[in-house]
Amino acid sequence: MSHLLIDCLQYSNWSRPIFQQIRDAGVSGLHVTICYHENFIETVRNITKWNDYFADNSDLIFHGKYAADIERAKAENRVAVFYGFQNCSPIEDDVRLVEIFHQLGVRFMQLSYNNQSLLATGCYEAVDTGITRMGREVIKEMNRVGMVIDMSHSANHSTLQAIELSTRPIAITHANPHSWHEALRNKPDNVLRALAQSGGMLGFSIYPHHLKDKSQCSVQSFCEMIARTAEIMGVTQIGFGSDLCLEQPDSVVEWMRNGRWTKAMDYGEGSKDNAGFPKQPEWFENSTGFANILAGLKQIGFNDDDIALIAGKNWLKFFRESFVGKES
Amino acid sequence: MSHLLIDCLQYSNWSRPIFQQIRDAGVSGLHVTICYHENFIETVRNITKWNDYFADNSDLIFHGKYAADIERAKAENRVAVFYGFQNCSPIEDDVRLVEIFHQLGVRFMQLSYNNQSLLATGCYEAVDTGITRMGREVIKEMNRVGMVIDMSHSANHSTLQAIELSTRPIAITHANPHSWHEALRNKPDNVLRALAQSGGMLGFSIYPHHLKDKSQCSVQSFCEMIARTAEIMGVTQIGFGSDLCLEQPDSVVEWMRNGRWTKAMDYGEGSKDNAGFPKQPEWFENSTGFANILAGLKQIGFNDDDIALIAGKNWLKFFRESFVGKES
Repeated sequence: MSHLLIDCLQYSNWSRPIFQQIRDAGVSGLHVTICYHENFIETVRNITKWNDYFADNSDLIFHGKYAADIERAKAENRVAVFYGFQNCSPIEDDVRLVEIFHQLGVRFMQLSYNNQSLLATGCYEAVDTGITRMGREVIKEMNRVGMVIDMSHSANHSTLQAIELSTRPIAITHANPHSWHEALRNKPDNVLRALAQSGGMLGFSIYPHHLKDKSQCSVQSFCEMIARTAEIMGVTQIGFGSDLCLEQPDSVVEWMRNGRWTKAMDYGEGSKDNAGFPKQPEWFENSTGFANILAGLKQIGFNDDDIALIAGKNWLKFFRESFVGKES
Repeated sequence: MSHLLIDCLQYSNWSRPIFQQIRDAGVSGLHVTICYHENFIETVRNITKWNDYFADNSDLIFHGKYAADIERAKAENRVAVFYGFQNCSPIEDDVRLVEIFHQLGVRFMQLSYNNQSLLATGCYEAVDTGITRMGREVIKEMNRVGMVIDMSHSANHSTLQAIELSTRPIAITHANPHSWHEALRNKPDNVLRALAQSGGMLGFSIYPHHLKDKSQCSVQSFCEMIARTAEIMGVTQIGFGSDLCLEQPDSVVEWMRNGRWTKAMDYGEGSKDNAGFPKQPEWFENSTGFANILAGLKQIGFNDDDIALIAGKNWLKFFRESFVGKES
């Protein structure tokens, strides 16, 4: 029996072998980042690149727009690919571009990426303003059209405000508990609790900077962290968001970290001596590693029903409730 | 019994009273122009305006994307609104923007508007190059995704080439036979014949500059012209494309004619003494005038089945075959 599997974040240097690997790993739903700092037209051109990927690899992948696409993907042994932005740069200063991107199939948008944005504060800023005036309008619009507010890279006060202001549950698609590993990007228990209580979802990251012992993290430690998080959030509000980046050149990690906002080099979660992408732990070198995690969960005592929830059913339910528009 | 009614072109100064009038006139499918000379981002902003129209007038109109939306509109006593461009300016120099606009719900694009474009020659140019190199690529892409090639404002040789190159039937959404009224925008019999033989559609225009005796044209003369066209093209390849423009300020007709391509004033089909929108004939001052035309068709001897085809069934069939994508 193979579990329905959803990975709620990857950002690789896309190619047919990578799509094949994801499909062969049994992933049916995949949230991909299609923008870090790109403006409107640059993001549209990223979408045209995806249209080419879909045309050239239609036996492996297709554009996912609604939850039902995941069940279709599972039945057809393909991967439904859902678009997300890690920043709000694509909508520039125009709230109406939210709906345009929803029409183009975008389903997730972070309100900020590490830095202050027009909408919210990023997790690297010294002062956290909370949700801005425009941010409140954009949250309303995202709620209306059915686009998920993702606070993975936002600051904590902004995140708590977003949870409160949003009339729909929000997501932190790729992060871990701060209590397990003290990274700026990992989230404190009060944020995780508020997220879960509002019906929101956390996707566990396997990016080494978010892991205890980084690249040396054991699968057992990772699974025990999941068990502790399930105690805090409940087993129904958690899933995967691996943050997997395969075969990207360092220029891409530089774009993620520096955009056009600094001329000096910012190393983000890395450092001058460790500037590139860190090495993945050996139990998750690519999407096929999900099998190791599911086995690890079983080993530490999760039953099959709970593993099925974490592997995909929780995200599937969240997708079902999140992507359909509401009357304004 | 009320016929299914489709108007395959209007460009009014949109407002709730106009939407109400179109709905009350029994129009179920409406092709609206959302661009004359706008570039990519300007056209996207026009789409955001339509998103507002739909949100504010959802009891009267909704965004039509496929033929089935017309039947839904008829059943719900609303109007399904289909987007079209009168020029190829929105895709700028990027063939991949065709699919982006199809994703945003655009279903018609003219390859040129009066002037030479990157794709084809307009009907006002001295020399007709035919379809350009980029034009051939864009036709292929429009065929692939399901966007109708509209040659209403194109030159005749370009139109004949588009008919030949396109693997799907094309349309001339708003024009009349040149043999009835010698306007530059009206089409010679050889073009109409080639259009019909390839399965294409002609929409009859009620823009006074396209009518014999212009604003004084009688409904009988208009209906007799339809009868003669049915003899040339067959009764299955014709419908309406009224080209109705209500309550537009003269600045809009100036934009249509002059865009940004000339500093001098071009009067298009008008003249210095008759620069604005001409007066509509009294039997078609707005969408309610379709009743006069359908009565006129009956009076000159059309039977109910043929009137039903011309009123909407022909366009409905054409929409059904045109808007769905093909595998590339």
